[in-house]
Amino acid sequence: MIDRPFVFHVSAADAILSTYDRHIERRLSDLNGMFADGVAYDALRAEGDPLLYEVYEIQRPELAGELLHGLSVVHPGLVGDEYFMTKGHFHSVLETAEVYYCVKGEGVMVMETPEGEWAVEPFRVGGVLYVPPRWAHRSVNTGLSEDLVTFFVYPGNAGHDYGTIETQGFRKRVIHRQGETQIVDNPRWLAPENR
Amino acid sequence: MIDRPFVFHVSAADAILSTYDRHIERRLSDLNGMFADGVAYDALRAEGDPLLYEVYEIQRPELAGELLHGLSVVHPGLVGDEYFMTKGHFHSVLETAEVYYCVKGEGVMVMETPEGEWAVEPFRVGGVLYVPPRWAHRSVNTGLSEDLVTFFVYPGNAGHDYGTIETQGFRKRVIHRQGETQIVDNPRWLAPENR
Repeated sequence: MIDRPFVFHVSAADAILSTYDRHIERRLSDLNGMFADGVAYDALRAEGDPLLYEVYEIQRPELAGELLHGLSVVHPGLVGDEYFMTKGHFHSVLETAEVYYCVKGEGVMVMETPEGEWAVEPFRVGGVLYVPPRWAHRSVNTGLSEDLVTFFVYPGNAGHDYGTIETQGFRKRVIHRQGETQIVDNPRWLAPENR
Repeated sequence: MIDRPFVFHVSAADAILSTYDRHIERRLSDLNGMFADGVAYDALRAEGDPLLYEVYEIQRPELAGELLHGLSVVHPGLVGDEYFMTKGHFHSVLETAEVYYCVKGEGVMVMETPEGEWAVEPFRVGGVLYVPPRWAHRSVNTGLSEDLVTFFVYPGNAGHDYGTIETQGFRKRVIHRQGETQIVDNPRWLAPENR
């Protein structure tokens, strides 16, 4: 734990390795059941277990006044027609926000509230994305040849709640069809009143 | 107040103007007594009242789970040998942190705790600076020809406490002397036990 102010360069690999002290890797097997195309999932799984995304963080106390921050790297690829993406989550303390700054690549953030309101907003290099309190969020890499790298900041006490999203996914899926990115309904999604 | 997720580009002037709904301008007269060289201050003041820095923010509820974020633009210049800088402040809720990402220019952040511990860390484009809870902070533009632009994020309930800094300044001053940037003691600064 660092108790003094500190600086680092987000886009230099060396700095990432030397500064971040928490590294999370998520492989295809960690997102079992989350992609719509089960046949494509099984085929890709049989070839190995590709790395879908990584998160680099600096450990800080998990307190309300602290800010957890780091880099999210979503690698490029498809499972069937569905882009590589993060698991996605609500914050355990639902009333906490998150800010993203896009460092590299292109993609979208898929979001929704517990009431079923949804939003899909673009990541562009140099762009900021604000996820207000109460919005679950999932990063999707729509660039098929390069990483989507975003810098994120959220309150130290926010926590992660993966439950609802793991069960049925987000209301919207982001797919690559006929050479373009499309936002389509997730047939497994149930409205809050039907769960 | 925006209740849905939103995106904007931090480095495009048009986006700044259209997205940010709070704009603060600080001129030389707003920092009366804060620069060491009173003669140079008065001379510059007599020529007009130059704009030292600007802050662009998006209005959000001032609650712990919200994140206030925006752009700080410190213009280039000197008052005597002292670089243009922000007033600097503690957070009213002392136990709250702040994260900076440097978008453009060069400079340093001058910081200190209520106990008198100090730190001066560099801003470099693409670099992150973490100001832990309890550290007062002031941005200084050490690039004499261009703006220092940083993107900042802090908890919605943090607030600003300018009192101590307005009275005696930070422990360290950042000056331009013999063609280089130097960090020197502030003779007006008093150790906490002598205040």
